[in-house]
Formats: sequence, C-alpha cells, structure tokens
Amino acid sequence: MKITRTQNLLAAVFVGVLAFVTTIAQAADPLPSWNDGKSKQSIIEFVGKVIKEGLPDFVPVAERIATFDNDGCLWSEQPMYFQAFFIFDRIKHLAPQHPEWKYKEPFASVLKGNVKAALSGGEHALVEMAMATHAGTTTEEFEKIVTDWITTARHPKTRRLFTEMVYQPMLELLAYLRANGFKTFIVSGGGIEFMRPWAERVYGIPPEQIIGSSIKTKFELRDGKPVLVRLPEINFVDDKAGKPVGIQMHIGRRPIAAFGNSDGDLQMMQWTAAGKGARFCLYVHHTDAEREWAYDRKSHVGRLDKGLDEAKEKGWTVVDMKKDWKRVFPIQKSE
Amino acid sequence: MKITRTQNLLAAVFVGVLAFVTTIAQAADPLPSWNDGKSKQSIIEFVGKVIKEGLPDFVPVAERIATFDNDGCLWSEQPMYFQAFFIFDRIKHLAPQHPEWKYKEPFASVLKGNVKAALSGGEHALVEMAMATHAGTTTEEFEKIVTDWITTARHPKTRRLFTEMVYQPMLELLAYLRANGFKTFIVSGGGIEFMRPWAERVYGIPPEQIIGSSIKTKFELRDGKPVLVRLPEINFVDDKAGKPVGIQMHIGRRPIAAFGNSDGDLQMMQWTAAGKGARFCLYVHHTDAEREWAYDRKSHVGRLDKGLDEAKEKGWTVVDMKKDWKRVFPIQKSE
Repeated sequence: MKITRTQNLLAAVFVGVLAFVTTIAQAADPLPSWNDGKSKQSIIEFVGKVIKEGLPDFVPVAERIATFDNDGCLWSEQPMYFQAFFIFDRIKHLAPQHPEWKYKEPFASVLKGNVKAALSGGEHALVEMAMATHAGTTTEEFEKIVTDWITTARHPKTRRLFTEMVYQPMLELLAYLRANGFKTFIVSGGGIEFMRPWAERVYGIPPEQIIGSSIKTKFELRDGKPVLVRLPEINFVDDKAGKPVGIQMHIGRRPIAAFGNSDGDLQMMQWTAAGKGARFCLYVHHTDAEREWAYDRKSHVGRLDKGLDEAKEKGWTVVDMKKDWKRVFPIQKSE
Repeated sequence: MKITRTQNLLAAVFVGVLAFVTTIAQAADPLPSWNDGKSKQSIIEFVGKVIKEGLPDFVPVAERIATFDNDGCLWSEQPMYFQAFFIFDRIKHLAPQHPEWKYKEPFASVLKGNVKAALSGGEHALVEMAMATHAGTTTEEFEKIVTDWITTARHPKTRRLFTEMVYQPMLELLAYLRANGFKTFIVSGGGIEFMRPWAERVYGIPPEQIIGSSIKTKFELRDGKPVLVRLPEINFVDDKAGKPVGIQMHIGRRPIAAFGNSDGDLQMMQWTAAGKGARFCLYVHHTDAEREWAYDRKSHVGRLDKGLDEAKEKGWTVVDMKKDWKRVFPIQKSE
C-alpha cells in the first residue's frame, strides 16, 4: 500500500494528538510511579476527602500535618542504616588523630574493615561510635562534614550516591501532599543534624520540618564569636515511643497522616490514628528483593513485625513495594 | 453665607476624596502604629534590602527566619510573667486535692494571697510550683486547661484579658514580616505548651513555630488509647544561652532577624547577628510608665542591662516604647 502525503500528515497529527492526550493523562496522575491498586487508591481517596470544604472529613490547611519516617520509608536502609556508613567513614577519617583506636573496640574492627565485628558490641558500641564521630565540632562544622560526605559517598552495593537511593514513589507522594496543602515532616530515629543538610534539596523538606535523634549542644563565645558546640551526650532518641514525644515537642499538633516502614514507627501510627476525624497510616513493606531488598519480621534493620499485624488489624495501608511501585529509585538500574 | 446645594455636593465629594486618599496612605504604611523615626526606618530598610532579588543583601524566602521573644516583647510581663498568674490560679484550683498545701510553702503563701512571700523562695520555689501545676495531665488535658484559663483570666491592674495586652505595633511587625516572606517564630523562656493553645489565634504563629521551655512527656497506652503524659521533670530551659540551642534544635537554621526585650534574649541576638549577610536585631525598651511600664537595668522581671549596652555598641535597634509607638495595645485605655 502506498502511503500518500495526506495520509502521512494525518498519521503525524494523530500521533501528535495521542502524545498530547497521554501527557494530559500523565499530568492528571499525581502519582505516576504508583501502579493502580488499593494502595494508590487509598492515598488519593484520603487526600480527596480532607481537602474538600463542606465534606464531613474536611481538615483546614493549618492542620494538614503529615509525618514521614526516613530510613526504609523515604530512602533505603540496607545492609545497614546509611548513617552507619557515615560513622564508619568518619572513624577512618579521624583515625590519625586517635592512635588508640587501633587497639580499642569497636574502632579497631572498623579500621580493619570488619563491620560485623564492629557492630557486635550492640547498642553500646554504636552509641560510642556515634559520639566519637558526631560530637566535638560546632554545628556549622558538622553541617559541612555531612554535606561533603553526602555529595561523594556511595553505597557499596549499588555504587550510587545515597541520595540517589530515595524512593521515587515517595517523592511523588510528598509533592502530592504538599500540592494539597499538607506540611510534610520527617520524624526519624536518625540524627536530626545528619538529615538537615540535604533533606531540603532531596525531599523538599526544610530543616525546621525535620525531627530526629540528637545530642546536646552548648552555646559558647569563642574569641567573641558565638558557636554551638556539639557534646558527646544524648539529648533525645526519636524512635518508637519517642516519636510521638518528638512530634509533640516540634509540631505541637497531631499528624493526620503518618508514613513508616518498621516497628519503630508503630507508636507514631497509633498516635496519628487515635486523633479525631479522618486519619491515614501507611506502611512501606519491603517485598522487592530484585529492585531493592525484601525483609520484614526477622530483619535486624527496619524490623516490621508488630506493625504489620496492627496495620492489618486496623486496616492501614500496607504498600507492597514489588506490586505497588512501577519504579523504586529516580534512576532505574537499566539507565 | 448661604451654602448652595452644589457647594454641599462639592464638599461631600471633597470629604469623600480626602477619606479615600487617607485610606490609601494608611494602606501603604505597613506599620501604622509606629511613629516615624529611626526604629521604624531601620525595620523598613532591613526588609527592603533582603527581599529584593539582585541586591547584595537578598535572602531567599526559605532563609527569612525571624525569632521573637514573647514576654515583654509581644505582650506585657508586669508585675510578673503572665504564666505566673496561671500557676497561682492553678494552685488555688487544685488546692482541694492537696490539703497539705495549706501548711507547705510556697503553696501556703499562694493560698493566702501573698504573692511576694510565695516568690521569696526564688527559682526553686517557682520550679516546684510550675511542676505541681504543669505536670500530671495528658497534653490534651493541659491544652484545654490553658485554653479555658486564657479566655477568662484577667490582669489584676488593667482588668483586661491577658491576650488583650499584646503590643499592637508588634502584631503589625509580625504581619509585615510574613507579608514579605518571613517565617515568624516565638523563642521564649515561657512554657511551650502554655503558649501554643492561643498563639496562632493571637499572633498568627502556628504551634510548630513556637519554641519554649518544656517538661518531659511520656507516651503511654491507656486502655488502648495513646496519650502523652506530662512529667514533673524539666526537659529544656529556653532562656539566655538556651535560646540559640532551642533555635538550632527546632529550626536548624540561623535567624536573620531577632526581637527581644531583656538580657535573656542577648545570646539569641548574638547568634543572629553573627551570621553572614544582612542581620537585624531589635530590643523593645520599656520606657512608658503611663501606657505600659517603665523598667530596664534593675528590674527583676525582664531585666535589660547588658543587652542595652551591647545593642548600643553594635548599633542594634532599640525601640523607645514611649516615643516610637503611637499606641501600645490593640484596645486603648480611652476606648
């Protein structure tokens, strides 16, 4: 069959119209990386009913507070929390100033590259390493240290920057909520000053909307110049029952939506769900061993056990990462 | 002289035009309760230079952080901090449940109406009274207690509601800054949960932008219902060297403008002033014994001594309440 010039033209117009229609359809979908299904539907239904004035579940803008866990909810957390990579890198960097570390655990194991041995000391060892690497600087110095690290350090398995291992569907969700008048907060067990230097650029969440664990700081005048010195003393642990405490301290208002992925988020969910009016709780369930990791009830990092039971019992949304997400990271493996 | 109908009409039109012109002039002045002078000029000049893109002092919206002390800066603080009136009222209210208070200081003095004796125990006595009246409830219960009190309690001298003793020029300043992209925070030595229930209504500042002193809270499930219980244990004192610590903890970003009235605000000013780029520090100096109170270097409440010297030395703005403010409170005495 011979194709005339007119047919060609018509075909071109048709393709153009099709592309246009597709663009419109995509623009209309605020969550393009989410497969259609229960999870996506539950999000859109919740937002729809709280933003419409006149509906019984309407919530004024000032009260549209949404809180997000970070590790395992907004970015990956395997084979260990990304902040632990930062701690180990800092120990190696600071080792010349600490010759005693060669013979002192857990530092000696870190310097030998034996992560497992370094972590075998449990929470006590971790706190010791965190203090040795997070304290002793001013807040300004620490911000620069984190910024330098996060712009260069790479994940040992994916070889990507850690900030490239954020979840594309969750970035879309953050943007979708904000476009609908929500104020989005991070409520993480991770260090507050470890997240702040990059969270605004990566998640669009400003430092005043980051809640996390912290060490104490002290105001000092150094040669007449005021500084805040970071002290090797725990101030607040923003995990489990600490999350509602941190939320009240920083926000002073109960969230209407909470997002997490582990038992460490359960109390935040309970606190959120117990408020009056429409509430939304969502667990990200790590079910995708191929594109990310698969783990839940027995994992040492990000264990989701009690939370999974309670989510099912209470009808909270549980995201099946493998089924619900079209893509996981902003840059896909094949790219 | 006989006034014709035409003359009458012309006069009416003239009055109308005059009223219109006056309205325009008032609308153009964002700080109508401030007399023209150095203080008002310094505010307008500062805002003008940080909001104009292209100018060397331009500051992006996200970094336009302004922090305000509360007692003596946004509302009055004489003859004692208004929260102290709340404490005394609570002691009287709770007395039937505490028969031992009749014989136990400082409670016994409060119940006898002897404020001076009650306060003679100094900080220790004050902390004891604060704990007895601020702890032991859930956060929700405490919010209701504060709301009920603030909507009915009156100042002993003015007989006005305490929330009517906020400063009209400062309300205009808050609104002016916000209209120019600033995020306004309260950074007060007062109780964070004492301010939050009414600060949004009165100052337009939401709970997540209130920083203050606090007691510890604990997450609990009571009959399956999650609550945050207020404990009789100090968590954080947001005064003096504590203010920059509180600012870093809650905001994570250095303010570009700070407003206070006492030596308790000095470290906040120093911290603010030491940042790079344009900075603005302002002290409200209480010089108006007739319309408000006059006090500074020797006052027990809101002492302004070192701060006054440093403000003069560093060229910070010092508001002379008597000269700089056309009116003090939203409702004037004669009204």
